[in-house]
Amino acid sequence: MPGNSFGKIFRITTFGESHGPAVGVVIDGVPAGLPLSTEDIKFELEFRRPGRLYVSGRREKDEPEILSGIFNNRTTGSPIAVIVRNSDVISSLYEEVKYKPRPGHADLPYIMKYGYENWDYRGGGRSSARETVGRVIAGAVAKKLLMLTNTWIAGHLRSLGPEELKEEISFEEVLCSKYSPVRASKKELEEKFEALVKKAMQEGDSYGGVAEIVVKNSPVGLGEPVFDKIKADLAKAIMSIPAVLGFEYGLGFNASKMKGSEANDEIVKKDNRLGWKYNYAGGILGGLTNGEDIVLRCVFKPTSSIRKPQKTVDLRNLEETTISVIGRHDPAVAIRGVAVVESMVAITLVDHAMRAGYIPSVRLTEDQISVIQQRWERYVNSCKPMAGSQ
Amino acid sequence: MPGNSFGKIFRITTFGESHGPAVGVVIDGVPAGLPLSTEDIKFELEFRRPGRLYVSGRREKDEPEILSGIFNNRTTGSPIAVIVRNSDVISSLYEEVKYKPRPGHADLPYIMKYGYENWDYRGGGRSSARETVGRVIAGAVAKKLLMLTNTWIAGHLRSLGPEELKEEISFEEVLCSKYSPVRASKKELEEKFEALVKKAMQEGDSYGGVAEIVVKNSPVGLGEPVFDKIKADLAKAIMSIPAVLGFEYGLGFNASKMKGSEANDEIVKKDNRLGWKYNYAGGILGGLTNGEDIVLRCVFKPTSSIRKPQKTVDLRNLEETTISVIGRHDPAVAIRGVAVVESMVAITLVDHAMRAGYIPSVRLTEDQISVIQQRWERYVNSCKPMAGSQ
Amino acid sequence: MPGNSFGKIFRITTFGESHGPAVGVVIDGVPAGLPLSTEDIKFELEFRRPGRLYVSGRREKDEPEILSGIFNNRTTGSPIAVIVRNSDVISSLYEEVKYKPRPGHADLPYIMKYGYENWDYRGGGRSSARETVGRVIAGAVAKKLLMLTNTWIAGHLRSLGPEELKEEISFEEVLCSKYSPVRASKKELEEKFEALVKKAMQEGDSYGGVAEIVVKNSPVGLGEPVFDKIKADLAKAIMSIPAVLGFEYGLGFNASKMKGSEANDEIVKKDNRLGWKYNYAGGILGGLTNGEDIVLRCVFKPTSSIRKPQKTVDLRNLEETTISVIGRHDPAVAIRGVAVVESMVAITLVDHAMRAGYIPSVRLTEDQISVIQQRWERYVNSCKPMAGSQ
Amino acid sequence: MPGNSFGKIFRITTFGESHGPAVGVVIDGVPAGLPLSTEDIKFELEFRRPGRLYVSGRREKDEPEILSGIFNNRTTGSPIAVIVRNSDVISSLYEEVKYKPRPGHADLPYIMKYGYENWDYRGGGRSSARETVGRVIAGAVAKKLLMLTNTWIAGHLRSLGPEELKEEISFEEVLCSKYSPVRASKKELEEKFEALVKKAMQEGDSYGGVAEIVVKNSPVGLGEPVFDKIKADLAKAIMSIPAVLGFEYGLGFNASKMKGSEANDEIVKKDNRLGWKYNYAGGILGGLTNGEDIVLRCVFKPTSSIRKPQKTVDLRNLEETTISVIGRHDPAVAIRGVAVVESMVAITLVDHAMRAGYIPSVRLTEDQISVIQQRWERYVNSCKPMAGSQ
Repeated sequence: MPGNSFGKIFRITTFGESHGPAVGVVIDGVPAGLPLSTEDIKFELEFRRPGRLYVSGRREKDEPEILSGIFNNRTTGSPIAVIVRNSDVISSLYEEVKYKPRPGHADLPYIMKYGYENWDYRGGGRSSARETVGRVIAGAVAKKLLMLTNTWIAGHLRSLGPEELKEEISFEEVLCSKYSPVRASKKELEEKFEALVKKAMQEGDSYGGVAEIVVKNSPVGLGEPVFDKIKADLAKAIMSIPAVLGFEYGLGFNASKMKGSEANDEIVKKDNRLGWKYNYAGGILGGLTNGEDIVLRCVFKPTSSIRKPQKTVDLRNLEETTISVIGRHDPAVAIRGVAVVESMVAITLVDHAMRAGYIPSVRLTEDQISVIQQRWERYVNSCKPMAGSQ
Repeated sequence: MPGNSFGKIFRITTFGESHGPAVGVVIDGVPAGLPLSTEDIKFELEFRRPGRLYVSGRREKDEPEILSGIFNNRTTGSPIAVIVRNSDVISSLYEEVKYKPRPGHADLPYIMKYGYENWDYRGGGRSSARETVGRVIAGAVAKKLLMLTNTWIAGHLRSLGPEELKEEISFEEVLCSKYSPVRASKKELEEKFEALVKKAMQEGDSYGGVAEIVVKNSPVGLGEPVFDKIKADLAKAIMSIPAVLGFEYGLGFNASKMKGSEANDEIVKKDNRLGWKYNYAGGILGGLTNGEDIVLRCVFKPTSSIRKPQKTVDLRNLEETTISVIGRHDPAVAIRGVAVVESMVAITLVDHAMRAGYIPSVRLTEDQISVIQQRWERYVNSCKPMAGSQ
Repeated sequence: MPGNSFGKIFRITTFGESHGPAVGVVIDGVPAGLPLSTEDIKFELEFRRPGRLYVSGRREKDEPEILSGIFNNRTTGSPIAVIVRNSDVISSLYEEVKYKPRPGHADLPYIMKYGYENWDYRGGGRSSARETVGRVIAGAVAKKLLMLTNTWIAGHLRSLGPEELKEEISFEEVLCSKYSPVRASKKELEEKFEALVKKAMQEGDSYGGVAEIVVKNSPVGLGEPVFDKIKADLAKAIMSIPAVLGFEYGLGFNASKMKGSEANDEIVKKDNRLGWKYNYAGGILGGLTNGEDIVLRCVFKPTSSIRKPQKTVDLRNLEETTISVIGRHDPAVAIRGVAVVESMVAITLVDHAMRAGYIPSVRLTEDQISVIQQRWERYVNSCKPMAGSQ
Repeated sequence: MPGNSFGKIFRITTFGESHGPAVGVVIDGVPAGLPLSTEDIKFELEFRRPGRLYVSGRREKDEPEILSGIFNNRTTGSPIAVIVRNSDVISSLYEEVKYKPRPGHADLPYIMKYGYENWDYRGGGRSSARETVGRVIAGAVAKKLLMLTNTWIAGHLRSLGPEELKEEISFEEVLCSKYSPVRASKKELEEKFEALVKKAMQEGDSYGGVAEIVVKNSPVGLGEPVFDKIKADLAKAIMSIPAVLGFEYGLGFNASKMKGSEANDEIVKKDNRLGWKYNYAGGILGGLTNGEDIVLRCVFKPTSSIRKPQKTVDLRNLEETTISVIGRHDPAVAIRGVAVVESMVAITLVDHAMRAGYIPSVRLTEDQISVIQQRWERYVNSCKPMAGSQ
């Protein structure tokens, strides 16, 4: 049964395998009038691009081609199909995988489900993280649309392996982590993360990490009781990302050890609205956004593909064997993962913002278009990294 | 937009408010031939019933009435509507809530979204945990259908407040926790949990907790790449439950501190199949069930409704005030919550088992019916509590 | 797989069998604030009620009970469940049907699909026209919501058996046909229809007919390219009604014999808008509503249940036999069918009006509520039949 | 809101504009193991190809490129994306259309809905019949999958303008009409149709027509009560095709003039099954397929784009004007439309066959693959036209 679509009003369908001709996405439900160019898309793709420092050595150019839905640089209300051709593909690296399913990978489950004969073993096929290119493309469109409500989404790594950020951080710091090669929000942390990453690369090993996303200015009341609560839809969106093993928001798992009198947040007057004093709820109460910042976290497991030999079974003779996964792999998928989580949050929020009527589902007015364009410029230019810093 | 339905093939729609005439559910997509009685449903409802020891004092009889879809004690393939009339409803207890939104509750977000004029303040209205009655009814049907693949679902409390089970437990212990008044899987733990609960009741406070679910004999290959991964659909199902703040499976958040060489599980021969040595992946790899036990956890926050006075704002004058939530409330929603999580897991798995063709979507054969009925008897009679133990 | 739900934003799920405890509907997606009472629902149910002149003798009181979603006589944004208990049920009339599938009925196909053992033979079970009660209940809510855009939906019988209305009629005449016992829009036609109906009753036979629906003031641009064109969704909605064999709009099947130069309508200035001179397109062009009246037709086959003996097969011995369907059946289902078609049109249009943002999906403002209520009063009081005319 | 997807298990999403870079489709839900090549797709595309005799002069090569979902010439269970680049595009022909909305076209409704600024006026943009390329591609996959149940789908023109086939025809004749340049099932009819078409071309005018589809060996019991009846889903599928104004099956609109005793079909023994004597019901009863041939019809309006001058309004000054639509247009869209209707029928039936478990949703066995391949060869080679006959 189909499982490659997500969203109800802003609805995306992704396709493509790691070593097939292309990966891509069809975005249906975008209102007419949104200015959209390949530049907008490439801006976001850059933050999940392989070939950056400390991430997978694969050097995709990731050049998006828009096939439909745009006329005179604006969306028309028709579905927007965008593809990225796969290049720099060395399938021969995967000849060993063909017979030795990789531990921690989708190889064996895919074989179990679809049959060995039908299994695209090259680079993980559909289960490859390359699939997330389509999500980030759609995330760019979602983020741009969310400029209408001035909703900004930013993520960083709260922890990488044993290193963890304990302090509070500002939204600015979170936002600007996108220019950190290890997605760190503080300079000292960046150094620690970099040391870990180098160690992992030397050892042929990898690390897990926790990504944290903060959303500023989410519209109030997003989410539908009872199954489409915003916390449920965000959880689904994020848990659908490869390598994510857990999700929490607000107090999260810490709440298990707390008393009600500690975990309940005080309702207080805030300027001209009612709000919550400490935002313990992470912006979500009763399954609805409550006007405070949305704060959520998810855990990425360590990259499964490692050079260190691991035990598996040879499918030809069912004998025990070992595999050392050669190829170009991230020492920590969490780093590039942040961009994907951000995208899934954006896609989920824009869908609910449209459901709730904050963003029109048919067409934008000229005034709205102009507001979006101004804020988008500001967003794209935020955190201005010093020249040569990447 | 509608948000009260869940599932694609086994599809449920719940309705009803805490203090309205009834709560209920429509279950669409059940194949013809399943023997189903109100007794089957009442068996499962018992484990989330209010009025049991240590849980909310509300004494609902929770008498389900089947309105459709059954003929001669069997499902016909038509939608099954089941309602439970609300009784023992004392709405006057909620007169104070009408003007003082409760901290940690959906009151204020509902007012923000739907308008004060349209807000059913009695007992939380639709946001009440009473909504979950419909989920447990559907869960009973799902669990019974899953007997076809001999799939058993059981849950227990891994922790309650500061008390936590560190040891390994057997599936038998998990299963039999349903007869523990505090959903503990071990006797010593039960005593600790009970002490905590009594303390909370005395203090007019409450505790959070972590529920853990184990699934035996899940069919292999459940879940659809890429957005309908089983981990994503389970996350959505469980995160849609009131008071759940986080979800994880397998190594979960612990994976963030691990290396790939530690977190990857070895693929090994197991009798006549391939499997994973330690089940680090919690039965799910590549978003698909892999044949090992599914192991997942979620965190319930402490009950928000507590007797201890908490700060809020009076909506009539926007002045600060306090509220002490009188009424009958659980000292730990996690206890009754286990039955709800089990139900949502069952509903999600049966849906995917039908998607994958393990359970027929049109009708059961007589042989299948007989297998289901035998296993269901065994399930209902499992853990035979000693007389008077409840 | 589930098939008992319809609509994306205004989403209904019906349940119930002809001779089960109740029939009903859950309506999800209604914005908060709509004033709604059982009186509103009963007003619409009256026009499909059995027991009126010339229609089935079954005397259901059709007393709707609202189980959820209403507080202080207004919708709250939660799902609205409404049930109607079945009464006046004489199942013994169906003992013969148990072994003799009725020609022109769903009996044999249901047995083929769901199995003889699981077949509810009493009164057609789920395939009974009684299922449409839920549609008309939902239709009442939809029609009331559509008052916001001043959209009025009315139907009549364009033909009954050999008698056909050739002349043009006014919207007023169409609207007021609801008080005609044979759904005729003109007095002379009413007499002809009545004569036919009497003849059919005497002969133990039945007639087919063509229902025509006219929609005034449909919002412009309803429908989504390409699969959810408004003509496609209307077709699905109407073709899902029992006994409907065909659907057309505008020129319909007549267009097959025409030239493009005849079938194309002229675009002209109309007051302060652009429009079409003759409305050949029946209000729908490019799959979108174009601002002209929507005009569509569907054909009802003659009632399948007739007293006249018909050939069938006895399931006990597979021998040829005949059946004379005793019981209370309409001489022409098309008559009561008009109310059901109107309802399905209303449900489809309100869904698309909400998709396009014409009707808010979260809540109505007090101004909107007041406009709706005023127009609804006018609607309910339109066509004021003379006392005793029914 | 999104409207570019169709189907629940076999789910297609189309995209692309007439004069954009490409049109295409993503097909999600195809089981693994189906042999699929561009040749299979091109075989079906040939029958809707522009540039054939008597149809639009546009000379698209219609070269499909498969971007995903295929490995070693077999489906993998992943979504299949196929695109066709647009070529032979002369947008300048549409400069006049930019200001003069064409009568009978989607031009003005699109402007009304999406705004003039966002309107892709080149060749009708998304409303162009070119959109149906994606449907025919998906139809090829659907038809091939349906070989598993030996279900064959064939269409022909029952009438073109005033010329109508009154006689009965064999399935063979229907099937072989695909090689008739005017989709006629009999030689004499072909001549009459050709004469009409030539006349229309000379006059700069066009004709409507009625397409009829016959389905052999449909599985029994397809369709879900109550809204997803097979007649409802077929109606939606077909009414979503551009230029289709009406749909009927079995007796269709003729039933309106009949009595129940005439329209009811006799149930009889047929070899080793029960069946219906005359198939008045067109293979569908109670909304379910009943094992007889499915027979349905739809009406295509005459091509709207004609050379004959027609009245419209100039958008620049709102003055009356005329437009003569230059460009390459079919004298009767019904001719190429038959292939599109066939495709939509195939897509609908394969979806329901998968829902009902006749076709596996995860993967095909080697035996099933071999059966499919053999029957597909027979299908492709059926009706073997004499050399040079096209």
